[in-house]
Amino acid sequence: MAAFREASPDQAELLEALVEAGLLVPSGVPGVYGRGSDFEDVRQRFDAYVTRAAAAAGERPEVLRFPPVLPRRQIEDLGYLENFPHLAGAVFAFEGTEAQARAMAETAGRHEDWSAHQCMTDLVLTPAVCYPVYPAIARRGALPAGGVTIDPGASYAFRHEPSGDPARLQMFHMRELVRIAEPETVQTWRDGWRDRALALLVDLGLDASFDVASDPFFGRSGRMMAASQREQALKFEILVPIAAPEPTAVASFNYHQDHFSGLYGITTADGGTAHTACLGFGHERIVLALLHTHGLDVAAWPPEVRTLLWGAEA
Amino acid sequence: MAAFREASPDQAELLEALVEAGLLVPSGVPGVYGRGSDFEDVRQRFDAYVTRAAAAAGERPEVLRFPPVLPRRQIEDLGYLENFPHLAGAVFAFEGTEAQARAMAETAGRHEDWSAHQCMTDLVLTPAVCYPVYPAIARRGALPAGGVTIDPGASYAFRHEPSGDPARLQMFHMRELVRIAEPETVQTWRDGWRDRALALLVDLGLDASFDVASDPFFGRSGRMMAASQREQALKFEILVPIAAPEPTAVASFNYHQDHFSGLYGITTADGGTAHTACLGFGHERIVLALLHTHGLDVAAWPPEVRTLLWGAEA
Repeated sequence: MAAFREASPDQAELLEALVEAGLLVPSGVPGVYGRGSDFEDVRQRFDAYVTRAAAAAGERPEVLRFPPVLPRRQIEDLGYLENFPHLAGAVFAFEGTEAQARAMAETAGRHEDWSAHQCMTDLVLTPAVCYPVYPAIARRGALPAGGVTIDPGASYAFRHEPSGDPARLQMFHMRELVRIAEPETVQTWRDGWRDRALALLVDLGLDASFDVASDPFFGRSGRMMAASQREQALKFEILVPIAAPEPTAVASFNYHQDHFSGLYGITTADGGTAHTACLGFGHERIVLALLHTHGLDVAAWPPEVRTLLWGAEA
Repeated sequence: MAAFREASPDQAELLEALVEAGLLVPSGVPGVYGRGSDFEDVRQRFDAYVTRAAAAAGERPEVLRFPPVLPRRQIEDLGYLENFPHLAGAVFAFEGTEAQARAMAETAGRHEDWSAHQCMTDLVLTPAVCYPVYPAIARRGALPAGGVTIDPGASYAFRHEPSGDPARLQMFHMRELVRIAEPETVQTWRDGWRDRALALLVDLGLDASFDVASDPFFGRSGRMMAASQREQALKFEILVPIAAPEPTAVASFNYHQDHFSGLYGITTADGGTAHTACLGFGHERIVLALLHTHGLDVAAWPPEVRTLLWGAEA
């Protein structure tokens, strides 16, 4: 078992209230919940709100969708296990005979350890929704003039960090947008979305602010990686109070420079190395922030918030 | 590696055409693809078409959504590994020290076997979209009079069966509906949906027919399970030609009797054992059947099909 993070008393109280209201459905494993209809409705409405904001900003991103599993080879190439060995999830499966299958099923039926019957497959769980985008774009050859903007939607991402905090899920929706273009274009896009996203969340009545941030790099050398990332302001986050001593990151804005484009060989129309940036809205955290701020009865939310999410139906 | 099923020549040709048209995006692993905007649009439209059909039939199913991972304990309790050991996917993760993390990352960086650094977690990949529904309903106590109908949506299911056939994915969307009620109510509902679903698919211009079917039980004893399932007509499938010598199952209708309700202790309003049934539409297979039947240019599909899926926008 990974180190389980206990919920703070207010996190435990929020989780209990969410379950009581039918907004979350416990599975028995911390950080893995079903979602009731109101929770899911708000999540879908927020997704459409972001899509409308992109259109209003004159963006027409290309829709691409990917399943929540990724070739194992890809996280090996990306060095994901150097930086986040503790968060990765790998898919294992059975490759044996009928007798071995019986032994495995009997062991599992007694709730004993059947891991020795499982082999690593070619797949891992997708740790970040933008990862499959880069090789897909590289495969097309050089970028068109002005680069591309890709909408990989609100797909699932996996992080192995079991916690009692309802805002720290092991499997969650990350609504991303990805920009691949000349370096200045990408930076301007990233900063524009940081400001736009802050306004979108403030308009929904959330006490949102942004800050320079770093990824949860592992171990001692990870602390140096995090410091360097902060120093170069490669990552911004938007923070909102949910139920914790500190506000929770609900969105992030990441400038990867040539990390992905160099690895996959993505070049601009004139043959230069492209740069990439992505933004991600943590769907479940944003729904939780809205529920925490406006109350668990969605129908009783402030009319201006309901109008922004539900439009004329509100 | 699980036994890889080669594509037939027409399956390989279809896959190539789908990739060429940007409808599918290869990941490098067989059975794992990204989806282009037209593919995804048709998939979403079909989902809404089923939702409208349920409403037109007077059903108001309760929406519940679940992530594509399930507590490992649940497939142990269900005996899934007895019946389908070859299809299950288990989530493994790292639980070691900084030195072990470095060794794992170095091994992975050389594309060598890093499985020894991974431990089984509490999670498996969800093999069937209805599985999390039963314990969630059991937790509420006895059913209301008339039972419940649950809409767990078009969530992802995982089956470890790498194949070159574009209609055999490892990770795919299964749109389910679940009925939990008195035995006769459940059987009537299942048979009603079998007929309704056939009409829905025929109306879309598909050459659809239904047949008694069985699940892909593993091994020699599995053949007896399959024969018994057929004999009792517990499973029906709707079959449509895609690109294969045989038509492909695109939807299934399953009567579980008291298999799930007995395990989780789901009782009817008057204290009897509830029965359960589910139906599942294989989203990607249905989109492939439509593309195979009406052509890869979605805008050029027959007007009557476009109107059914896109409504006034068509």
